[in-house]
Amino acid sequence: MPIVLGANRYGKAENRIVRITKDGPVHHIKDVNVSVALSGDLAATHLTGDNSAVLPTDTMKNTCFAFAQQHGIGEIEAYALRLARHFVDSQDSIHHSRVSVAEYLWDRIVDGEHSFVRSGQYTRTCRVHYDGEQAWIVSGLQDMTVLNSTASEFWGYIRDEYTTLQETRDRILATQISAEWRHSEESGEGDWDKSFNRAKSAVLDAFRDTYSYSLQQTLDEMGTRVLEECPELCEVRLKLPNKHHFLADLTAFGLDNPNETFYAADRPYGLIEGDVLRDDAPDAGPAWT
Amino acid sequence: MPIVLGANRYGKAENRIVRITKDGPVHHIKDVNVSVALSGDLAATHLTGDNSAVLPTDTMKNTCFAFAQQHGIGEIEAYALRLARHFVDSQDSIHHSRVSVAEYLWDRIVDGEHSFVRSGQYTRTCRVHYDGEQAWIVSGLQDMTVLNSTASEFWGYIRDEYTTLQETRDRILATQISAEWRHSEESGEGDWDKSFNRAKSAVLDAFRDTYSYSLQQTLDEMGTRVLEECPELCEVRLKLPNKHHFLADLTAFGLDNPNETFYAADRPYGLIEGDVLRDDAPDAGPAWT
Amino acid sequence: MPIVLGANRYGKAENRIVRITKDGPVHHIKDVNVSVALSGDLAATHLTGDNSAVLPTDTMKNTCFAFAQQHGIGEIEAYALRLARHFVDSQDSIHHSRVSVAEYLWDRIVDGEHSFVRSGQYTRTCRVHYDGEQAWIVSGLQDMTVLNSTASEFWGYIRDEYTTLQETRDRILATQISAEWRHSEESGEGDWDKSFNRAKSAVLDAFRDTYSYSLQQTLDEMGTRVLEECPELCEVRLKLPNKHHFLADLTAFGLDNPNETFYAADRPYGLIEGDVLRDDAPDAGPAWT
Amino acid sequence: MPIVLGANRYGKAENRIVRITKDGPVHHIKDVNVSVALSGDLAATHLTGDNSAVLPTDTMKNTCFAFAQQHGIGEIEAYALRLARHFVDSQDSIHHSRVSVAEYLWDRIVDGEHSFVRSGQYTRTCRVHYDGEQAWIVSGLQDMTVLNSTASEFWGYIRDEYTTLQETRDRILATQISAEWRHSEESGEGDWDKSFNRAKSAVLDAFRDTYSYSLQQTLDEMGTRVLEECPELCEVRLKLPNKHHFLADLTAFGLDNPNETFYAADRPYGLIEGDVLRDDAPDAGPAWT
Repeated sequence: MPIVLGANRYGKAENRIVRITKDGPVHHIKDVNVSVALSGDLAATHLTGDNSAVLPTDTMKNTCFAFAQQHGIGEIEAYALRLARHFVDSQDSIHHSRVSVAEYLWDRIVDGEHSFVRSGQYTRTCRVHYDGEQAWIVSGLQDMTVLNSTASEFWGYIRDEYTTLQETRDRILATQISAEWRHSEESGEGDWDKSFNRAKSAVLDAFRDTYSYSLQQTLDEMGTRVLEECPELCEVRLKLPNKHHFLADLTAFGLDNPNETFYAADRPYGLIEGDVLRDDAPDAGPAWT
Repeated sequence: MPIVLGANRYGKAENRIVRITKDGPVHHIKDVNVSVALSGDLAATHLTGDNSAVLPTDTMKNTCFAFAQQHGIGEIEAYALRLARHFVDSQDSIHHSRVSVAEYLWDRIVDGEHSFVRSGQYTRTCRVHYDGEQAWIVSGLQDMTVLNSTASEFWGYIRDEYTTLQETRDRILATQISAEWRHSEESGEGDWDKSFNRAKSAVLDAFRDTYSYSLQQTLDEMGTRVLEECPELCEVRLKLPNKHHFLADLTAFGLDNPNETFYAADRPYGLIEGDVLRDDAPDAGPAWT
Repeated sequence: MPIVLGANRYGKAENRIVRITKDGPVHHIKDVNVSVALSGDLAATHLTGDNSAVLPTDTMKNTCFAFAQQHGIGEIEAYALRLARHFVDSQDSIHHSRVSVAEYLWDRIVDGEHSFVRSGQYTRTCRVHYDGEQAWIVSGLQDMTVLNSTASEFWGYIRDEYTTLQETRDRILATQISAEWRHSEESGEGDWDKSFNRAKSAVLDAFRDTYSYSLQQTLDEMGTRVLEECPELCEVRLKLPNKHHFLADLTAFGLDNPNETFYAADRPYGLIEGDVLRDDAPDAGPAWT
Repeated sequence: MPIVLGANRYGKAENRIVRITKDGPVHHIKDVNVSVALSGDLAATHLTGDNSAVLPTDTMKNTCFAFAQQHGIGEIEAYALRLARHFVDSQDSIHHSRVSVAEYLWDRIVDGEHSFVRSGQYTRTCRVHYDGEQAWIVSGLQDMTVLNSTASEFWGYIRDEYTTLQETRDRILATQISAEWRHSEESGEGDWDKSFNRAKSAVLDAFRDTYSYSLQQTLDEMGTRVLEECPELCEVRLKLPNKHHFLADLTAFGLDNPNETFYAADRPYGLIEGDVLRDDAPDAGPAWT
C-alpha cells in the first residue's frame, strides 16, 4: 500500500520585531512576535529535496522586517493581512498563507517622551489565513488572569463512586483567559483597534458581572457578551484553565477561615474550552487552524 | 440573529501520577501526566449553570488515581483507553472522551533496586479518543533533540527581492522532534511498547540515514520509515522546528572556520510540519484534535 | 583529613497564599509566594538522621498560612518579619531565619467590587533575615521591563583584536529590572508601602531621565535616585540584563532604516550588576544572602 | 552623607556555542552556554558614562567564539580558565573575571558518525574566577533528578502548635540535584573529565546507598562521598529541592494503597542546602560567588 505525503506547511516562527515611530520628540512603540506558515506545491522538497518551489524561511523573516519598515506595523491585523497576501500573491508555488502576530503592550512612563514600561496584563494576538481569494481573520488576547473573590458557586453535579468533592456556595473563581474571536469579513480596515478594545472590555465585563454556577457558564457569558457588543464578529473561542484556589484548612490551629485564606494550586487544573457563535456565522474555513 | 453555543469540552489537565510496582526488593516506576477532556450534553451548565449533567473535574482526577491503583498503569495507551472508555460508558451525559498521557522516563541507577535517575532524552506520549463505539489512538514522542553535523545542504530555492540567504552545501541540521503516529486499529493490546520502540527507532534511524537537501525531506523520510517499520500504524505527523546553527564569522580575527564553530540561535526558527500516511488509512475522525 | 559539615539551611519554598479581605461587598486581595529558610543546631539530622532539632518544612508551610489568617498579610515586609521572628523565637534549635516574599499585584476591574485582573508589570519582593536579636530587611521589585527608544549612546570603549562592535550615538536601551534595596533599620512599621512606592518611582524616573552613555551609568543613576528619594534606605543592588535591540539591516531591499525597525534578540545578552550605597551604611550582615 | 558606588561587574551572558570536531568521517560535538563577568577600574562608566576602561560585552562574546575556534573547547574547565585569564591578563582595567560554562551533553545515535541525540539527564557546569594571580575553579552538575522509591523515613521531629505532618517509616525521596564542588588547586589539566565523572558517580552512588532519615542526611552523604572519592576536591555545595510525592488517599474508593500510587506535587517544596568540606580546605575566596 503506497505511503503518501499529506497536509504540510512550513515557515519562520517568532520573528521578534520592535518598531519605533517618531512624532518629533514623542516616540511610539510596537513590539510584535510574528510567525509565518505557508503551503502549496511543496511535494518536491519533501520527496526529492528539490527546493525550486521553496521560498526560504529566511526570506519570510526578511519580508516581515522589510514590511514593518516599508508600510509600518500599525494594527496587527492589517500588518498580518498585508504579509499573508504578499506571500501567496507573489509566489506561484504558494497557495495558502497563515500569519500570526502576538503584540506585547507597553505603557508610557509618566512624563516620558521616549520611555516605556512593559505592561504584562495580557498579550494581544491575531491570526490571518489567505488562500489567494479570501482572508479569514481571528483576533484575541492571551494570558489575562482574572479572579472573582466571591459570586461563584458549584453544586448539583453528578456524583459517582469516584466523587469526593464537597459542594460549595461560595468560592474563588480564577482563570487565565485565552480568547479568540473571528471577524465576519476581512474588511476591518481602520477599526481593528476599536474592535479589539470593545471585545476585550466585553470579556472583562462579563467576567465581573456573571454570578457563576460553573466556569462553563462564565465562558458562555463572555462569548455572548463579545458578540453582543461587537457586530463585526461572528464567533468566539475561549480556553479557560480553572486556576483552583483551595480554602486553607486551619481548624487544627483553632482558626476559623471564612473564605479568606487560600492555597493557589498549580496542577492539576480544570480546563474549560468552548465556542460561542452566531447562528448565521459564515463557514470558518481554515480560520481556527 | 441568535447567539448559540458551539463545540465545547471540559476536563482536568495535568494530573501528575507516579506509580511504584514492587517485585520483591526490585521496584519499577511509571511517571505520568494525565489530562482528561469530556464532551456531551453539556449545554445546561453553559447556559444556566445547571450542573446536573456535569461530572466534576475533581472526580476525573480521582478516577485517574484510582484506576492507577486498581488496574495499574502499564502501557500508557492501555491506561488511557481504560479511562476514556470509563467516562463515556459510565455517564449518560458524556458522549466523547479524550485522554492524553505524557510519560517521563527513568533509568535505573547502576546496581540500584529502588533508585532511579530521570532520563531527559524525550517524553513518550499518547492520546486516546472514544465516542462510545470507537476509539482512536495516537502515540508519539516529544522534545527529542537531534543534530546532524554534516550531510545537510540547502540550495536551489526561490529567490525574490527579499532573499539574502546564501546557498550552502554543508550545514548543521538540528531539530527538536515532536512526532505522533496513529494506530490503524484500537486493538494494540500487549504491543504498545513494542510499537513505540519500533517507531522511535525508525525516527532516529531515518534522521541519521537521510542525506538531506531540506528539513522537509528529512521529515518525509522519518514519517515514511515509521510506516515501513510499523504495519500497525497508518499515519505520522511531525513538527520539526529548525534549530538554526549559524557558522560563526571569525574572519575579522584572521581565523578560518571550516564548519567547526557555530552559534546556536533561539528565535526566529524555521518550523516544518507535515503528515505522512498510507494511501488507505482509515478516516482519522477526531484522532488529531 | 576529616570531612566536616559547613553552612546549611533548610526550609519550605514557594508557599502560594492568596488572601481576601472584605470591607462589606468590597473585597481586597493579597497574592504572595512565601519561602522560608532556617538554620541552627542542625548537625544531627545531617550526620545521623536524628531529627529531634528539626522543625518540619511542612510545619513552616502551615505557619505561613496560619499567620496569614491570624494576623493578616498586609505589607509583605511586616508579614515576613513576623514569620522570621516566630521561627527563631519559638524554637531553641533555630538560630537564624530568612523569609522571602514575592507579591503578585492585581488591579481592580473597573466598577468591580470583588473582581480583579492581574497586573504583570512587575513583582514586588522582600527578604527578611532574623538572628534572634537583629533583623535585616531588603525590599525590591523584579521583572519590570523598560525601554528608552533614544537618548542612549555607546562609544569610546576599549578596542582589542576581538572587537568588531560599531560605535553608536543613538540606540534603544532596554532592560528587565531586578532591583533590591536595604532598609537602614528594621523599624519601618507602617511605612513599607510608602517606601516601596517612592523607591519604585525613583527607579522609573531615573531610567526615564538619564541620557545614557552606558547601561552602567543608568544603573548608577537608578541606585542614586532611590537613595536620594528614600532616606530610610542605605543600599541598592541592581541586576540589569541589556536586552539588545539590533537595528534591522534593510539595505539589501533598498530601504533606509533611521532607527525605526529593530530585531529584539534573546541570547546572548549583556548583564550589568552593581551596588550603590551610602558612605555610612551599616554593615549588611546576611541581608543580601 | 555621600552616596557611593559599591561592588559591580558586567559581562555577556549565555553565549550559545556549538563546536564540531572531525576525526575523518567521525564527528564529535561540544555544546556550551558561556557567560562572562568582569570587574575592575569601572567607576568612570558608572559615574560619568566614560567608557574608556570598558571592554564591550560584544567583544567578550567574540572572544568566546574565537577561542573556541583557536584553541578548541575540550574540557569546559580548561576553556573557562583560558578565557578568564585572557580578559584579566590582556586588559589593564580588568582585575577580576568570572567565566561560567554549562555543557549540554549529547549521545551518539547508534551507528551514527555525525548524528547525535541530546541527553537530558543533567547539565555539566563549571565556574572559574581569576584575579590576575590565582584562579578558583568550581565544577558541578545541574538538574539531575533522582528518586528512591523506598529506604526513606521521616520521624522524630519537633512538634509545635502548627505541626500536622504524620510521621512516616516509608516514603518516596526525590530531588533535582544541583551540586557544585571546588577544586583544591587550579592545576587540574588533563583530569577535569575524570574528576567530573568520579564526582558525578559519587553523588549517584551516595543517593542510592543511603538509607535516609532526612534529605539533610542524604545531602551530607553525597558531599562526603564526593570528597572521599575525589582527593582533588576540597568542598561540595548541594541544593536539593525535596520533590514531594504524596501517597494518594484512595480509601474513599475502597482501595488500599501500600505505597504504590503517589501524587507528584509542584509547590511548595522543601529546599535543603548544605556545604560539606575538608577541615583544611583552602580559603574559598570568590569561588562560590
